[in-house]
Amino acid sequence: MPSFFLEPGPAQKIRGLANPNVSFWLSQGVKKRVIIVGGVAGGASAAARLRRLDENAEIVIFERGAFVSFANCGLPYRVGDVITDERKLLVATPELLRDRFRIEVHTEHEVTAIDRIARTVTVRNLSDGSERQETYDALLLSPGAVPIRPPIPDIGLPGVFTVRSIPDVRQIRAWIDKHAAKRAVIVGGGFIGLEMAENLRHRGLDVTVIEKLDQLMPPLDPEMAIPVRLHCESHGVTVRLGDGLASLAAAANGGLTVRTDHNLEIAADLVILSIGVRPETQLAKAAGLTIGPRGGIVVDSHMRTSDPSIWAVGDAVETFDVVTTSPALVPLAGPANRQARIAAASIAGRSAGFRGVQGTAVCGVLGLTIASTGASEKSLRRAGLLDFQAVYLHPGHHVGYYPGAKPIHLKLLFRPSDGRVLGAQAVGKAGVERRIDIVAMAIQMRATVDDLAEAELCYAPQYGAAKDPVNLAGMIAQNARNQDSPLAGWSEIDDPGVLILDVRERSEWHAGHFESAVHIPLGQLRDRLGELPKDRPILVHCAVGLRAHIAVRILRQRGFDARNLSGGWTTWRHVEAAAESARAYLPEPRAVPPEPTG
Amino acid sequence: MPSFFLEPGPAQKIRGLANPNVSFWLSQGVKKRVIIVGGVAGGASAAARLRRLDENAEIVIFERGAFVSFANCGLPYRVGDVITDERKLLVATPELLRDRFRIEVHTEHEVTAIDRIARTVTVRNLSDGSERQETYDALLLSPGAVPIRPPIPDIGLPGVFTVRSIPDVRQIRAWIDKHAAKRAVIVGGGFIGLEMAENLRHRGLDVTVIEKLDQLMPPLDPEMAIPVRLHCESHGVTVRLGDGLASLAAAANGGLTVRTDHNLEIAADLVILSIGVRPETQLAKAAGLTIGPRGGIVVDSHMRTSDPSIWAVGDAVETFDVVTTSPALVPLAGPANRQARIAAASIAGRSAGFRGVQGTAVCGVLGLTIASTGASEKSLRRAGLLDFQAVYLHPGHHVGYYPGAKPIHLKLLFRPSDGRVLGAQAVGKAGVERRIDIVAMAIQMRATVDDLAEAELCYAPQYGAAKDPVNLAGMIAQNARNQDSPLAGWSEIDDPGVLILDVRERSEWHAGHFESAVHIPLGQLRDRLGELPKDRPILVHCAVGLRAHIAVRILRQRGFDARNLSGGWTTWRHVEAAAESARAYLPEPRAVPPEPTG
Repeated sequence: MPSFFLEPGPAQKIRGLANPNVSFWLSQGVKKRVIIVGGVAGGASAAARLRRLDENAEIVIFERGAFVSFANCGLPYRVGDVITDERKLLVATPELLRDRFRIEVHTEHEVTAIDRIARTVTVRNLSDGSERQETYDALLLSPGAVPIRPPIPDIGLPGVFTVRSIPDVRQIRAWIDKHAAKRAVIVGGGFIGLEMAENLRHRGLDVTVIEKLDQLMPPLDPEMAIPVRLHCESHGVTVRLGDGLASLAAAANGGLTVRTDHNLEIAADLVILSIGVRPETQLAKAAGLTIGPRGGIVVDSHMRTSDPSIWAVGDAVETFDVVTTSPALVPLAGPANRQARIAAASIAGRSAGFRGVQGTAVCGVLGLTIASTGASEKSLRRAGLLDFQAVYLHPGHHVGYYPGAKPIHLKLLFRPSDGRVLGAQAVGKAGVERRIDIVAMAIQMRATVDDLAEAELCYAPQYGAAKDPVNLAGMIAQNARNQDSPLAGWSEIDDPGVLILDVRERSEWHAGHFESAVHIPLGQLRDRLGELPKDRPILVHCAVGLRAHIAVRILRQRGFDARNLSGGWTTWRHVEAAAESARAYLPEPRAVPPEPTG
Repeated sequence: MPSFFLEPGPAQKIRGLANPNVSFWLSQGVKKRVIIVGGVAGGASAAARLRRLDENAEIVIFERGAFVSFANCGLPYRVGDVITDERKLLVATPELLRDRFRIEVHTEHEVTAIDRIARTVTVRNLSDGSERQETYDALLLSPGAVPIRPPIPDIGLPGVFTVRSIPDVRQIRAWIDKHAAKRAVIVGGGFIGLEMAENLRHRGLDVTVIEKLDQLMPPLDPEMAIPVRLHCESHGVTVRLGDGLASLAAAANGGLTVRTDHNLEIAADLVILSIGVRPETQLAKAAGLTIGPRGGIVVDSHMRTSDPSIWAVGDAVETFDVVTTSPALVPLAGPANRQARIAAASIAGRSAGFRGVQGTAVCGVLGLTIASTGASEKSLRRAGLLDFQAVYLHPGHHVGYYPGAKPIHLKLLFRPSDGRVLGAQAVGKAGVERRIDIVAMAIQMRATVDDLAEAELCYAPQYGAAKDPVNLAGMIAQNARNQDSPLAGWSEIDDPGVLILDVRERSEWHAGHFESAVHIPLGQLRDRLGELPKDRPILVHCAVGLRAHIAVRILRQRGFDARNLSGGWTTWRHVEAAAESARAYLPEPRAVPPEPTG
């Protein structure tokens, strides 16, 4: 094809393309054949976007399953009958893709091999087993991820399910109905596990969640996961941390017997496996495409693989974390969609770059919202980035004087050296996703804690506060950075050289306190300074951090070496409970936790 | 005082201070006297912050009213009995300020004059009428704003109220109870007017809102205020636009007769005046401080007035709009708090600068949320900034397949030349303040529409969408900027030279359409291109803009001059209703609308 070697026209603005041929074809109106492997989120999005950019391309989707463009994220809610009509999960049908976008869709067709030299794929029709070759000019891989199934015998027993497809959900629903299921065991306490816990509770089942880690919701830091566990337990979910699935057996009554690593036997009518997913890379590997250290398909910022005619998007690709810059597998719908748009643009000869992922995610469980963005303390430590500090706070989601305020447990991570916001985690019953979204935008725009402090956000009594939780988090970090009110870490309270000062009121002290602490209510502090030493570090705490901040300011102006135990007694109880979980369930050191599975 | 001329120490980091004396004193531990005029939001915040920065200062608040630090924004909800206990409105009492912060508070003390040479103020004790002089080293003015009362006779009749203070609210509540009030007229349809409408409806009153402008909620563009009006009306509120208060009279039955500019008589048991506020500048003017073009006290970025020993914050000061850079009066609690922190820091000898205001605001009325940030189309035109374009969209607040999705009517303003986000307005029943907060952070960080398109936001089915409304707004603007899918303005449909193409389905067309439009459902478009002209601009619309976008992409790739009528038929109905309001109520040109009153 000599046309390959012609210069691209000036209108194409190609930057960093390894292979400009495709865009050249487009600019010349030559009909190009684009094959897309996988028709769920990434594949279908890319196909539609490509059509909007190129009326001439022949676009063909091969999807192994029976459905394209279905709402993966909605599956747990179909199990729970919250979504009452399965058809609602079909975001775009093959007919719509054909009529509106002239996209050819073949469901139940699996691409089994890629011949990169010939630019063909082998396609197997799963209904009749026939195989054929299809040629491509550009190939887009959107194979997704597959649920991890523990390598134990009998994992294939009837009544053991994953939640990844519409047929999965049909089977779970049918099984619950047929067996009048009453008891479910969920293996894995991440996004899908908790969403399934909610939905199975909603259907009236008893639910036990077992999780190998010593915390629920692995993307959170352990102390932030404590309110999640307490909430689940208060809603009747049994949570077993630090324990995994050891074996499964069919029980005499037609049910299943689940045995855990710690040798607990749990009777169940069904078992849900939600221990995470791994990228579906079999096809890419067999074709010799480069696979990354985390096991995903390696792509450049244009979503192009190591073969310049092959692009890949979605759960199967390895991308990078914008905060830690570490390689990352982030199986989330938002990034998959952004990647799909970029891959389509690149295939259409345009320049667009993927900026990486922040891992912004949200999960609802039984009325509680859990959300996070950017780095966690765990992920920073894992990446060796130790220039960080954590701020904890527990403000209401709106002002306290308006009825119905719910606390938000918020942890902000920032870089003291330059003030950059690194990440945030929040748990609460209202306003949680809003605050995380604000911080997500702040991280994207490389904001500092000063920017958070000065943010101008929506305030009316039923919506927030004149100082929004995001403002407060920024102010606390500001005060820590400029040494007005330095923060102490909770691990420091074990240091025998420090003095712990509790500035809460007497009733709060009596409800629970550190044995070694000195108790001086804030209102008496100025008159009782003589009781405090100037030669020992003083770690001050109150219930959530505000009174301690005021106390720290008084003390530091009087020459004391005082710091604030961030988040106060409320955070301490979470920290202590997390340590308790770790002690109770982890007799030996454990491996690095798996990636988030939302 | 020779110490004035000593060099400040290196630790003080003073930048841009006109008068470094204060900071010098502080650094030397000299006790300084700071007088604060006004103890509500700005004054009390500044006092507390100043104490945290300076244990030595003598801090004295003089408040004309009976209460300090009360929750101004909560007053309407106290009228409506949503807040059942008046004490909840008292954020900080004089006792708390004394015990916790050692701040001296004098309520019912009015500062009546400033002697700038002697650095004294004259204070009148309102309970006994006595007067005294008080000296200051630094003076902070936080006098707030006063409700505007129309200059008509009988405005002082019993039963006519403003909503600015706790005594106001007590009087309104007592009046409603005593007179078993059934009918209220609210004069002014901004934030306070609508909040009062909600709360008086909540108490069972019939409510009529009269508003001189041809729209409710003046900070919104008129078409965005249409869903607000429709919602209020559907909840039993009578809305009369383009009509003002002409006169008031006592009625025979003990009530009031309201007569409007258009000579309508409305019987009322009480009248609420909520037509806005003006800065309280009497004291500042008398002292010769510089007053700005909008009538507020002029301050520099440190909140210092034209006198280097006097600072001012809150509703009384004139600041500037960060988007239009125009001088602005923005009586909002968030900016007042930020200003208070900055003034306190400046008085304490620190460097901190106020970045201006964005006008981020939210208002709830009868289940509807209205929020906005940055510039409106009106404010851009007023400032002569015509390099802008508007995007309209109407996405659900979460995915449609999860039950309960509510539409958000969203308008995004951006600058085509460089893509900068200029402002956003949103109206809907859920998720509104969250999206405006995200855009508020984006504007603060000088984000472009590309940044909105690529934002990584919280998504799970009950919380949003893989393409969040904010992403969609950014993508639409991106497609407009790069000419993939240019937008048409709704005023262009009157141009006889254009062809309007309606790509909705037949049933939608039959429910209402433009008479002159050509109707080709999207699914048929590729087969019926021959029916369309290549020599006329084609303005395409659907219901909300998505199908029209796809149609525009098809047409433009085939050589048609097609553009998208942003927001589709849904926006058109708002635009048309707004024009209808303007035609019906505005026989002659009106003055520039007043500032927002929230």
